[in-house]
Amino acid sequence: MKRFRILSGMRPTGPLHLGHLHGVLKNWLSFQENHECFYFVADWHALTTEYDSPQKLRGFVKELFLEWLSVGLSPEKSVIFLQSAVKEHAELSLIFSMITPVAWLERNPTYKDMVQNLQNKDLTTYGFLGYPVLQAADILIYKAEKVPVGLDQVPHLELTREIARRFNYLYGTEFFPEPEALLSEVPKIPGTDGRKMSKSYGNAIFLNDPPEVVKKKVLSYVTDIHRPRKSDPGDPENRCVAYNLIKIYFSEEERQEVVEDCKKAKLGCVECKQRLASKVIEELTEIWERRFEIEKANWEELLQVGIEKARSIAKKTMEEVNELLGFSYKF
Amino acid sequence: MKRFRILSGMRPTGPLHLGHLHGVLKNWLSFQENHECFYFVADWHALTTEYDSPQKLRGFVKELFLEWLSVGLSPEKSVIFLQSAVKEHAELSLIFSMITPVAWLERNPTYKDMVQNLQNKDLTTYGFLGYPVLQAADILIYKAEKVPVGLDQVPHLELTREIARRFNYLYGTEFFPEPEALLSEVPKIPGTDGRKMSKSYGNAIFLNDPPEVVKKKVLSYVTDIHRPRKSDPGDPENRCVAYNLIKIYFSEEERQEVVEDCKKAKLGCVECKQRLASKVIEELTEIWERRFEIEKANWEELLQVGIEKARSIAKKTMEEVNELLGFSYKF
Ligand code: SF4
Ligand code: SF4
Repeated sequence: MKRFRILSGMRPTGPLHLGHLHGVLKNWLSFQENHECFYFVADWHALTTEYDSPQKLRGFVKELFLEWLSVGLSPEKSVIFLQSAVKEHAELSLIFSMITPVAWLERNPTYKDMVQNLQNKDLTTYGFLGYPVLQAADILIYKAEKVPVGLDQVPHLELTREIARRFNYLYGTEFFPEPEALLSEVPKIPGTDGRKMSKSYGNAIFLNDPPEVVKKKVLSYVTDIHRPRKSDPGDPENRCVAYNLIKIYFSEEERQEVVEDCKKAKLGCVECKQRLASKVIEELTEIWERRFEIEKANWEELLQVGIEKARSIAKKTMEEVNELLGFSYKF
Repeated sequence: MKRFRILSGMRPTGPLHLGHLHGVLKNWLSFQENHECFYFVADWHALTTEYDSPQKLRGFVKELFLEWLSVGLSPEKSVIFLQSAVKEHAELSLIFSMITPVAWLERNPTYKDMVQNLQNKDLTTYGFLGYPVLQAADILIYKAEKVPVGLDQVPHLELTREIARRFNYLYGTEFFPEPEALLSEVPKIPGTDGRKMSKSYGNAIFLNDPPEVVKKKVLSYVTDIHRPRKSDPGDPENRCVAYNLIKIYFSEEERQEVVEDCKKAKLGCVECKQRLASKVIEELTEIWERRFEIEKANWEELLQVGIEKARSIAKKTMEEVNELLGFSYKF
């Protein structure tokens, strides 16, 4: 298996939930076994939307790192770091800003969407418009080859590729690789109400929810509404929201049994979800236990190695970029 | 006399001419005697327009420093430095980008003008649009109190003041001072053809022109066109381009004599301009001699002190800014 350099980040804007765990972190965990991975907390990116109350990001930054480590991301296997601790991201972003047409940014669909959707917030800032420029710097400063993205983020990555191409073209070089999307199969993790799991919908099971809360939330999952009584046969695959979690948490054999019993009206939803809750809590218990251990250490110290590693690579890239631009002086 | 912290910069995009000397550098020289001055070569700013051939900036950067020192700017009296040597400008610029509405930048008259005027170049880049954001970072990172500007640059400085205000308002602080414009009386220095002296008009006398070239250029100055012969009386104040330089280079007594003799048709234009050329060459000779001395030293070493000083102040400001934002970690 070819070893790639993979880079991905998360914005520290809230606690992690099962959507993050199964949609992102499980992939990150598997990547770190076979690839050279860079995972970073994107605090400068968070500032694009949270500029009016940046102080609250501080808690989320710490929390995010603790949860990453609790889930099993390893500062020895992966380069785990904080974006704002590597100032070179800002420098490369500034350089890229000079070669990026405003039109490329304005046509970015995510930009248009977010400006419209987050109407309670003024997002028509210069920094928010330039989000993809900073993102290109994040990725290219490490010359990452693969970037795990969801389908909706492919246009973002395409901008990074365009910026890399433009830099290479303008300065007659093949300096930056064009990073490729790593499209992964991501299981659907709906929230308790059937919509996408999200903090803002109030339908999420957080990794740091206490066991009794997890249980309560799992029991509140919407199930087959055409099945008010246990004696009505169910249709898990098509009508039960909880079934999406059952597919993840149950073994294949167990899952088949549930489907069969549900369809034959032999299994009630409460019992079914109680079994599911136990499995979810079982998995989270491992995370809680690891977290308990990690909290004994100083989290900032745990990340020092990753930050040093990221810095040294970023510094080297900037030296090379400045050499290409003729910006290398002996100061 | 109150001692202010003054900051100003120049883009390294070409050799200096008499317009720079009398319009800018003479003021800088007088400021450095009584104020705390920060003068920087704005190489990142130059990149906004010269991104397609940044390598050529390298020579201009060196040349600009050499000429600054040759005209008498002193690395002991002033903090003389290179923008890109102080990476914190990029970091603060990134922070400011988050709080600066795109609309503020789009309405900037200089932006609109330049995009239209430099039509041979694509200036619709993100970095060019954000020029005033970087400029605000340049100024505010040193908490400069006064910024020498021409009347046409007042809107630029107003943007810096707005960004300072917005930062202070958002983060409940009086952290950044609002820098004030230092509007100086600037003598009009037309080029040989009567238009504004400018490299691109081909009408400039450069500080590094050899004496014979200076002489030739001075002699080519447009004079009173209603005076084809010496025997025609002239009108220096209203119709002679060369007279603008005569006002600068001649003593008050000499000037009055020229005006009188010209009006009485006693002085011919060739003789008059020959006298002017001698005076210009006399002043430039001092600069050339100082430059000869300076070139013996290593220019990068001469600037080391200024760069260290600028860095230490900029670092401190960024530590304070990051403290305010909650971005101060022990990494
Ligand atoms: S028994 Fe289980 S799978 Fe069937 S509808 Fe109820 S919760 Fe869903
Ligand atoms: S004599 Fe001197 S001042 Fe009079 S028009 Fe000629 S150049 Fe100008």
